[in-house]
Amino acid sequence: MDLVTTALAGNRRAIARLMTLIENGQEAARNAIAQLYPYTGRAYLIGVTGSPGAGKSTLVSQLARAYRSAERRVGIVAVDPTSPFSGGAILGDRVRMRDLFTDPSVFVRSMASRGNLGGLARATADVVKVLDATGFDPILIETVGTGQAELDIAQLAHTVVVVVAPGMGDDIQAIKAGILEIADVLVVNKSDCTDAERTAAALEMMLELGSGHGARRSALSSDFMRVAADDASQSAAAATDHWHPLLVKTCALVGEGIAELVEAIAHHRQYLETTQELGLRDLTRLVNELERIVRDDLMKALLNGIDQVSLSDLVARVVAREIDPQTAARQLIG
Amino acid sequence: MDLVTTALAGNRRAIARLMTLIENGQEAARNAIAQLYPYTGRAYLIGVTGSPGAGKSTLVSQLARAYRSAERRVGIVAVDPTSPFSGGAILGDRVRMRDLFTDPSVFVRSMASRGNLGGLARATADVVKVLDATGFDPILIETVGTGQAELDIAQLAHTVVVVVAPGMGDDIQAIKAGILEIADVLVVNKSDCTDAERTAAALEMMLELGSGHGARRSALSSDFMRVAADDASQSAAAATDHWHPLLVKTCALVGEGIAELVEAIAHHRQYLETTQELGLRDLTRLVNELERIVRDDLMKALLNGIDQVSLSDLVARVVAREIDPQTAARQLIG
Repeated sequence: MDLVTTALAGNRRAIARLMTLIENGQEAARNAIAQLYPYTGRAYLIGVTGSPGAGKSTLVSQLARAYRSAERRVGIVAVDPTSPFSGGAILGDRVRMRDLFTDPSVFVRSMASRGNLGGLARATADVVKVLDATGFDPILIETVGTGQAELDIAQLAHTVVVVVAPGMGDDIQAIKAGILEIADVLVVNKSDCTDAERTAAALEMMLELGSGHGARRSALSSDFMRVAADDASQSAAAATDHWHPLLVKTCALVGEGIAELVEAIAHHRQYLETTQELGLRDLTRLVNELERIVRDDLMKALLNGIDQVSLSDLVARVVAREIDPQTAARQLIG
Repeated sequence: MDLVTTALAGNRRAIARLMTLIENGQEAARNAIAQLYPYTGRAYLIGVTGSPGAGKSTLVSQLARAYRSAERRVGIVAVDPTSPFSGGAILGDRVRMRDLFTDPSVFVRSMASRGNLGGLARATADVVKVLDATGFDPILIETVGTGQAELDIAQLAHTVVVVVAPGMGDDIQAIKAGILEIADVLVVNKSDCTDAERTAAALEMMLELGSGHGARRSALSSDFMRVAADDASQSAAAATDHWHPLLVKTCALVGEGIAELVEAIAHHRQYLETTQELGLRDLTRLVNELERIVRDDLMKALLNGIDQVSLSDLVARVVAREIDPQTAARQLIG
């Protein structure tokens, strides 16, 4: 049997080898993904994002346990290099999560150490496909909450959980910086802290003021999306984009509020399913992925067609301020 | 006189109009940039990044005042939507900065409200070119400290100042997340806080452990850079990449430590000038800009050559899991 068939049969080592092929960007991975692709689209994807130190990893591990107790097979993808799932945190965290690492119905993969951000997004999307095709559902994707990564997660996940820790100075400021706009569920973690009630109250007030979802909407209005998506799905977006983020208070370390979080996620899923938005998110995600691949491949094709001497020469003229970058780009393409 | 000539003569309204053209992405802006470009490359670019609430804006305003007292013409570009320079903060901040807004030798521009992140990076680079060509030097660029934005600033600026606020939970975690790797100067702001000494001590220890500059090095190893930059500059990078970030304690609100920060920046500049790294940073920045423009323009050219029906059809087949995104991308390009 080939690697893909073995992986589809549930062999963990085959699954891990596929992921390594993907991370190394090998041609074999392309063919494997093409073979796996018809089996994808079944898993529910949950993104968990937030500032470093907000308690994302502990929350992810508690969520995983909750889904395990409901006999679900759980995938965990950690894109955050500070996550215990990436080996990046203190040892105690990993010890507390040992049950997840040894559970045959849980698959943990870290994407922490991989090259540039563009490549990482592409590899992460493909690793999620492998977990999806091999029957892991839900798949929890943990990323550090920073600008572009947040937007990428919003496009990859069905439900985006944004974790805020009270009293860390990032509560109100983070909201200003747009984190509310991608949150489907907002978690105020460490609810034993004295500031939690204040933070939750402030968040609740801002939620009622009804900002939100601007970022996702702007993701839908990219050039590529405008051309690629037909009118029907675009008007569906306009019609159904009325979800108001749910607010959940947790103390992940002791498991408080986890049942409520699972319920909030289920509630959001139900919303997506009863409106047309589930399909729309799938569409958005795939169009964005297609766009990313097209961009990369166009660039590769261009580079293959240019000899190094003339490219170096053009760059030298830009550096000498003889020709500006936009004119240089036109010469390269033309 | 045309707009560019008027701007080059120092007319503030012409400068502002050029920036508006750039932000709106108009064709006229392309020609203007091409005309301005030979006058660029003279300003010293200082990036200021860090978590929301770390005090970046106050630090930028104090830096601007310090350079003004040395009779320099100062440009300020705020990419951070929470910055008072963008009108995003509380009124008190803006009142404290009124002197900067009314000083004819200071030019403040906010890039906060502009479209997608890719477009923002391109527009910011061009706005900096306008300030550079019209004689503002230094140019202070304030961005919110988040993953990709940090890397972009590192590529745009000659000196990157990373601001950390003690006791906000983001000190040690932020370092883990890689913020050290792009810092040329590390500022622990609000040195009146009780936690400042502890944070500074922890940072100093980590600096001595000698991590750092991995991110910049990896930026240099992109596909495009490998092809575009010749061997000489690459080996220069390897030879001179030995800067160890300086640590400065400030209390920006009352101006403490600002003189030391100005000195640290000057020290870093001297380092860049005595090694080959100043030219290398210029090269890196321009190559990255060229790459970004080439990517965008290739995509635009592709979209112009595709009819919407066949693109929508291809996307529909991807959504139906009949064809995977990579195969679809090949069909689009081929």
